Amino acid sequence: MRIDILSLFPAMFAGPFGDSITKRAIAKGILNIHIMNPRDFAEGKHKQMDDTPYGGGSGMVIKPEPMFKAVRFIKETTNYQKRRVLLMSPEGAVFNQAKAKELAEYDQLIFICGHYEGFDARITENLADEIISIGDFVLTGGELPAMMITDAVSRMLPEVLGSSESASTDSFYNGLLEHPQYTKPREFEGMKVPDVLVSGDHAKIAQWRREKSLEVTLKNRPDLLEKAQLSEKDRSYLEQLQSK
Amino acid sequence: MRIDILSLFPAMFAGPFGDSITKRAIAKGILNIHIMNPRDFAEGKHKQMDDTPYGGGSGMVIKPEPMFKAVRFIKETTNYQKRRVLLMSPEGAVFNQAKAKELAEYDQLIFICGHYEGFDARITENLADEIISIGDFVLTGGELPAMMITDAVSRMLPEVLGSSESASTDSFYNGLLEHPQYTKPREFEGMKVPDVLVSGDHAKIAQWRREKSLEVTLKNRPDLLEKAQLSEKDRSYLEQLQSK
Repeated sequence: MRIDILSLFPAMFAGPFGDSITKRAIAKGILNIHIMNPRDFAEGKHKQMDDTPYGGGSGMVIKPEPMFKAVRFIKETTNYQKRRVLLMSPEGAVFNQAKAKELAEYDQLIFICGHYEGFDARITENLADEIISIGDFVLTGGELPAMMITDAVSRMLPEVLGSSESASTDSFYNGLLEHPQYTKPREFEGMKVPDVLVSGDHAKIAQWRREKSLEVTLKNRPDLLEKAQLSEKDRSYLEQLQSK
Repeated sequence: MRIDILSLFPAMFAGPFGDSITKRAIAKGILNIHIMNPRDFAEGKHKQMDDTPYGGGSGMVIKPEPMFKAVRFIKETTNYQKRRVLLMSPEGAVFNQAKAKELAEYDQLIFICGHYEGFDARITENLADEIISIGDFVLTGGELPAMMITDAVSRMLPEVLGSSESASTDSFYNGLLEHPQYTKPREFEGMKVPDVLVSGDHAKIAQWRREKSLEVTLKNRPDLLEKAQLSEKDRSYLEQLQSK
C-alpha cells in the first residue's frame, strides 16, 4: 500500500513513523509513505495557502487551488488501481475498526490535513472522496488523526503483524473490551494475581476471562454490548450482573 | 501545566510536539512536557518491561514494578497540587471535548502509554486515576492518543490560542458541525462560491450558515442534535428538512 500525506507541517511525521508498527510495515516493503507540503503548489512569491472567508468571520480558510493541484500531482505521478482521497475533519463519520479494515483494502490512500483552520468547501465536497473524523474534540490539525489512521490501517495489512499480535486484535473484534491481564510477580505490594489464573484449569480460566470481559464492557461501554456477539451463557451472566 | 509522558518509544514525540499548538504553549511558558522511558526503572541486565500472561495466551503483558516506580519518581520529584495519572486503553471512556476541558483544569497530567501489548491489571486498577480511550479501533500503542489528548488539552489552556481561534473552537461547543466555508477565488474550475456569501447581507449570511450547520449535522451526525442547543427556528428548519 502507498500512503500520501499532504501537510503544511511535514516535520511532524518524523518521530511517529520512525518508531511504530508503521516502521515495521515500511521495512517489510508492505507500506510506502510519502509526505508532501501542499505549499509547494501554492502560487505567488508568498506561496499563500489560506485567505479570509467569504461572508466574513474570524479565522482563515485553506484555498482550493494548491490542494487540487497537489492531489492531481500525486495521482498523475503514481499508478495505483484502488485509491481514496481522505480529508480529516470533525464533520465526517467517526473512525472505527471497521473503517480501518475497509481502508486496508485500498492500494493508495491520500490524506489531506488542515492546520488551525477550515477548508474551502470545494475541497471537502469535490476533492475528497471521504471525510473522516477521529472523534468529538478539537485538534490543531489533521496530522495526528492521519498518523493514527495510518497506524490502525497498517495493522490490518496482511503480514504486518506477527501471529500473536493478530490474535489480540481479533479479541477486539468480538466486540467486547479485553479482560484484565496479569504477569509476574504473582504478588506486588500486596496486590495479588487472582488464584484462578494460576490454577492450571484452562476451562475455568477461559470462563473467568469471558466473564471479566463482559463485566468490564457492561461497566465502561454498555453501548458495545448491543452489537457484540453473545452466547446464551453470556446473556444470562449479564442478566445476573445487572440484577445485582 | 506540566505533562509527563511515560513511553517505551520517546523518540516518537519529537516531530509532533515540535510543530503544533503544543509548541506555542511551550514557548509561552504555559506548558511543560517531559518524556520519560519506563525502561529506565526496569530491573536486571535486560531491563525487562514485559512478561507472559498468567493463565496462558498469546502476547506479552507490561509488568507492574517499573511503571509504579516511574510514576512514583515523577510524583516525588515534582510538586503540583492537582495531578492526574492517565492510562490510554480501549477499555476507558471515549475522549471528547468535555473531557479535554476537564483535564485542562489539572496542574499536572501523567500519561502511561503501552506499546504492542496490554498492561498488568494492577497498573490499570491501582496506578492510573483514569483510563481513556481515543476511539473504537486498535493502535500499536498509547503514544498517538497521548499526543492527541495533549494537543486538545493545550488548546483549552488560557492564553494559548489567539482570539480568532478561540472563536472557532466555541462554534464547535454549540454542539453542531461547522457550516461550509469559502475563500478566494470566487469561481474555481466552474465551482462557485454561493451568492449569499458575497451579498453583504449579514443577517442572511448568518441564517444561511446556521441552516447549513443544521443540514450537515442532520446528514452526518444526527446523534449530535440530541444534545445541541437549538432554538424554535432551528427545530422548525430541521422538521422541514426531515419532511423532504
